[in-house]
Amino acid sequence: MKENHKTGSVYLHDIPLARAWDMLIQALETADLWKPLAAEEVQLENALGRVTAEPIWASLSSPHYHAAAMDGYAVQATATSGASDRAPVTLRIGPDAVYIDTGDPMPEWADAVMPIENVESIEETVDGRAREAIRIRAALAPWTHVRSMGEDMVATELVLPAGHKLRPIDLGAIAGSGHDTIRVWRRPLVAIIPTGTELVPPGTPARVGEIIEYNSLVLAAQVETWGGAATRFPIIPDDFERIQETIVEAAARHDLILVNAGSSAGSEDFTAEVVQKLGKLLVHGVAVRPGHPVILGMISRSFGTNADMTGIEVPKQEDARPGVDRALSAHVPVIGVPGYPVSAALTGEIFVEPMLARWLGRPPLEPLTLEATFTRKVHSSLGDDEYLRVTVGRVGERLIAAPLSRGAGVITSMVRADGIVLIPAGVQGIQAGETVSVRLYRSLAEIEHTILALGSHDMTIDLMAQYLSAKGARLSSANLGSLGGLIALSRREAHFAGSHLLDPDSGEYNLAYIEKYLPAIPVVVVGYVTREQGLIIPPGNPMKLTGLADLARGEITFINRQRGAGTRLLLDYHLEQMGLEPEAITGYGREEYTHLNVAAAVASESANCGLGIRAAADALGLDFIPLFNERFDLVIPLEHYQSPKLAPLLEMLEDAEFRRSVDSLAGYDTSPMGSIIAEMG
Amino acid sequence: MKENHKTGSVYLHDIPLARAWDMLIQALETADLWKPLAAEEVQLENALGRVTAEPIWASLSSPHYHAAAMDGYAVQATATSGASDRAPVTLRIGPDAVYIDTGDPMPEWADAVMPIENVESIEETVDGRAREAIRIRAALAPWTHVRSMGEDMVATELVLPAGHKLRPIDLGAIAGSGHDTIRVWRRPLVAIIPTGTELVPPGTPARVGEIIEYNSLVLAAQVETWGGAATRFPIIPDDFERIQETIVEAAARHDLILVNAGSSAGSEDFTAEVVQKLGKLLVHGVAVRPGHPVILGMISRSFGTNADMTGIEVPKQEDARPGVDRALSAHVPVIGVPGYPVSAALTGEIFVEPMLARWLGRPPLEPLTLEATFTRKVHSSLGDDEYLRVTVGRVGERLIAAPLSRGAGVITSMVRADGIVLIPAGVQGIQAGETVSVRLYRSLAEIEHTILALGSHDMTIDLMAQYLSAKGARLSSANLGSLGGLIALSRREAHFAGSHLLDPDSGEYNLAYIEKYLPAIPVVVVGYVTREQGLIIPPGNPMKLTGLADLARGEITFINRQRGAGTRLLLDYHLEQMGLEPEAITGYGREEYTHLNVAAAVASESANCGLGIRAAADALGLDFIPLFNERFDLVIPLEHYQSPKLAPLLEMLEDAEFRRSVDSLAGYDTSPMGSIIAEMG
Repeated sequence: MKENHKTGSVYLHDIPLARAWDMLIQALETADLWKPLAAEEVQLENALGRVTAEPIWASLSSPHYHAAAMDGYAVQATATSGASDRAPVTLRIGPDAVYIDTGDPMPEWADAVMPIENVESIEETVDGRAREAIRIRAALAPWTHVRSMGEDMVATELVLPAGHKLRPIDLGAIAGSGHDTIRVWRRPLVAIIPTGTELVPPGTPARVGEIIEYNSLVLAAQVETWGGAATRFPIIPDDFERIQETIVEAAARHDLILVNAGSSAGSEDFTAEVVQKLGKLLVHGVAVRPGHPVILGMISRSFGTNADMTGIEVPKQEDARPGVDRALSAHVPVIGVPGYPVSAALTGEIFVEPMLARWLGRPPLEPLTLEATFTRKVHSSLGDDEYLRVTVGRVGERLIAAPLSRGAGVITSMVRADGIVLIPAGVQGIQAGETVSVRLYRSLAEIEHTILALGSHDMTIDLMAQYLSAKGARLSSANLGSLGGLIALSRREAHFAGSHLLDPDSGEYNLAYIEKYLPAIPVVVVGYVTREQGLIIPPGNPMKLTGLADLARGEITFINRQRGAGTRLLLDYHLEQMGLEPEAITGYGREEYTHLNVAAAVASESANCGLGIRAAADALGLDFIPLFNERFDLVIPLEHYQSPKLAPLLEMLEDAEFRRSVDSLAGYDTSPMGSIIAEMG
Repeated sequence: MKENHKTGSVYLHDIPLARAWDMLIQALETADLWKPLAAEEVQLENALGRVTAEPIWASLSSPHYHAAAMDGYAVQATATSGASDRAPVTLRIGPDAVYIDTGDPMPEWADAVMPIENVESIEETVDGRAREAIRIRAALAPWTHVRSMGEDMVATELVLPAGHKLRPIDLGAIAGSGHDTIRVWRRPLVAIIPTGTELVPPGTPARVGEIIEYNSLVLAAQVETWGGAATRFPIIPDDFERIQETIVEAAARHDLILVNAGSSAGSEDFTAEVVQKLGKLLVHGVAVRPGHPVILGMISRSFGTNADMTGIEVPKQEDARPGVDRALSAHVPVIGVPGYPVSAALTGEIFVEPMLARWLGRPPLEPLTLEATFTRKVHSSLGDDEYLRVTVGRVGERLIAAPLSRGAGVITSMVRADGIVLIPAGVQGIQAGETVSVRLYRSLAEIEHTILALGSHDMTIDLMAQYLSAKGARLSSANLGSLGGLIALSRREAHFAGSHLLDPDSGEYNLAYIEKYLPAIPVVVVGYVTREQGLIIPPGNPMKLTGLADLARGEITFINRQRGAGTRLLLDYHLEQMGLEPEAITGYGREEYTHLNVAAAVASESANCGLGIRAAADALGLDFIPLFNERFDLVIPLEHYQSPKLAPLLEMLEDAEFRRSVDSLAGYDTSPMGSIIAEMG
């Protein structure tokens, strides 16, 4: 056991985000780094996405001469005067009219173009000699169908201001205004150093205790997306000297260093100490969740370092021309990025993006922010700004935001997030039904195509998501359990809910619950599947289980589903029938939210068994003791059932290939799929 | 003069856009090309922005073992039971408690982590021997502060569906789920062939009749933005054989060929004929404006071509691995892209983007679309879909959309456009005040930061735009003339208007007009500059002009400003005073919208003189006969004057550097700048 978490001179002390930024900006200003880094000249063909370092003034007018705007004949407008259908005018080819293509320069004597389609070619005979001519039947005002010089741009005009991120069309306008190179702010060079003895690169078979290192992949992609150039260093073990050496190496050639992780105060967290040794530790700990163990520091750059950069590819500034100012500052900011993937990605958004924006002379990104109705009560720590990931969809007229997992280690919560709701420090949380501002991660179009499913978990939800994605829709689901799904429908927070609630009195599924929980909402209950429920057990059934009665055996550890889940209700019903007390079951209190997580608990031997569906056992190579067959229906409010948004879902239920893909999962029977079981309300 | 525009077998015949697309899709389907092109395997680090070709299923759970979620001590939860402040529990280091860092695997016997901050390290003496231990003052439930296996992802779960464009966070999730490569749809290879004898590359000094070729730059950047890989071919002269050869060459290695231009029916437009010779001409002419001379065709690929690709860099598929299916189809679509820059860029948006989207297995881009109030009546051709460029800003509560230049040659109209309003075929136009849907080209944040100036043109508007851009605001201006600006304010369509309207009765500027046109709107009139108005004339004054009286000399050609412009009103007032009839002035009827365009007309010798400000003459190296000094004010409605949005504008008027930059322009005096001239209404 290592002790420096107790003896280390730097200890985590969270400060508010705004104060952390103030300190960072002050340090950057002192180092003369709170401004764009330096300009460089690039060829226009390499300038897409770059930011202009100075205003671009037209050096050439466009067009730069009077040009024909149509294919036709250049003429003098006065020569056409009086022409009409009844009194056509004849103009001689050559002296009076000259054929001209669009874009050709106007002859000096001409001031109008007669379009080719309004011209009749004729041959006159004059003094016995054939002569080509045209006949026209309308007069032209001077400068008709002529693009006069400077129509588009006049030399000296502003084409684009400084600080503009270049789009495809801008490149054309700049070229047209007489330039073929342009000065842009150079890309910030960002070193990304993954540290951790336990880390292994992606693609390595990971043993217990080894963690696949992918934060550097995410951070590098973020940096590229935001206009920087990233260098990913190899993984450095938790060793003070090695980390220090690597930071010194990186500092020689980069504008910013991200060290991931080692930013906390654990026994192998060296980043803060290294920063303190090489320069100044500004901040250790920021009151944001997830992500609080952030380090901000400023170190001195050692220009003389004869660093061994073998195997590290530093981005080249290929576009650079000789003589461009690319002097590096004497100081380099260092950010210690927390190790949890959600924290790491958010640290990128909160600290790295605005710094790159400043260095690139552009405003920080402002995501589209919309108001949405929040679905569930959430408590938040008074001391922290919390960045809550949410799914967002439009249900009826309202945008609905439902919170996702808050775990800093749950990267899938970021992948699935449609946006972020910020709960500021000093606020205790959000009430269900409250209106919140959501910073969107996706386009509004994607949000509009999102089908929100809140309710029971089923193994086929992934197949649904895949099918709908191919049809241009997007399925966003959260596992609230069957009852939770019906309640979400009653609050008009979802488009449909999967449900498998057995009514013991009737032996029927769902209908009694819908009557109780959705009295005011007309719904269509659509058949989906029947599936086998039973005990998920390790291969070979080492504990010799036979049924639910075995759960009360003292040596058996059970893994349960969350309250409100249909499977939990099923269990509780049967335990009651059997007269078994929950207290008698070891592990009854430990809850998982999906069948697959129950199976994972069994596979990892943290439990001996759980109640779930056969397909989950099958997916992880486990054994299964079948106990019940149950019907799993889709409950769809009538207004959504009839809406175009859900059309792809209803088509899916008729699709033979989708049905086959569900049938291929163990324990499923798709015969109910697509049948109307009931129309209610 | 060439004749094939008359004899050519293919002649421009516009068909509706939807029909053109139907024909294109049918041809692509026949060629088995209306689907993603082919999948290839890429390393995750090269996968940013690529589109998944198949669903990604987790091959590893995350975490893939039970892991500590905090730095602290791994313990058995049962061993902590009963611990409290009053009854602390002591656990021996070693048998009962083991130090563990976040992410470390849990010992098999442990099922909870006591965070380091809740632990007191002590030394016990047992049987006379010192022993390390910890004291704890709270009990833990089983699995507290443990990330159980699969908490984030369980192996076999769907990580991402097919058809998903990869973001930074996605790369992390895929790596965490056990993959280091991924199958994505390969990039479509797009050949861009600029044709035209008159074309010269950017950076070439362009002589009269030469046109700088930049459409290929724009098209290539569009293709890259949309996920394709572009090859820009060198400029090919207008020569049937050369164009044919080049298309055949390009077809050997590309998925799509864009030929620009030669798509019309002029004497040197060969694209349609070449397409007809090499395959099938599907469409020649689409009823869209701008952009109608579009060609759509499908040609046979000649695999045996021993094409000379010298000097042409074809994008490499570096990420590709051996064995990936990259067979090219036997057919290649060809799009003849019109030559006008706005038409070319819109053809990219209308035809190329959706085709690339299909080939990349992603939905076509859907720009954010918002409702806005349209400012001016616009007529549109009944036969065409018109893509009208507009500026957009929020004035008070409403979004305001003002039309920009409709010229197909005016690339600055695309650069300045905040969005597009589509006027469909069959609709005659848009009324002022009508609500229209705008497809935004910019983010809503940018729109919200936009200051709309509608009114008089002044040479310092470019300096304002540059200043405001540096402050994070954006100036969007349209030249409606001084009167037009006041009317726009009265309709609440702009944030401020520049105005220099002389009231002959009082000799005062603007106030009388404001009283008349803005009776109901409280405004602040802020001083800006005085500037010299006079005759803009060629260097050396070859026509020996002395003043306005000379305009009536028959040999003088004048260039005028548009109706409603302050300068036009100034001219008309003086002409009336002098008893000069407009009809007596040659060129009185030819109107330009800016001082600089008036100067450009003089510089290009299409006029002998125009009335305008000295700075415009100065910018183009012209001479100037000063006639008047006039005050140019900013008229700002009180509600905007007091709003944060206009704060940067008001700060600008106090900024010494800005003032200096205006003073440095010829004929300007900034002494009125920032003074309150009147508060009215």
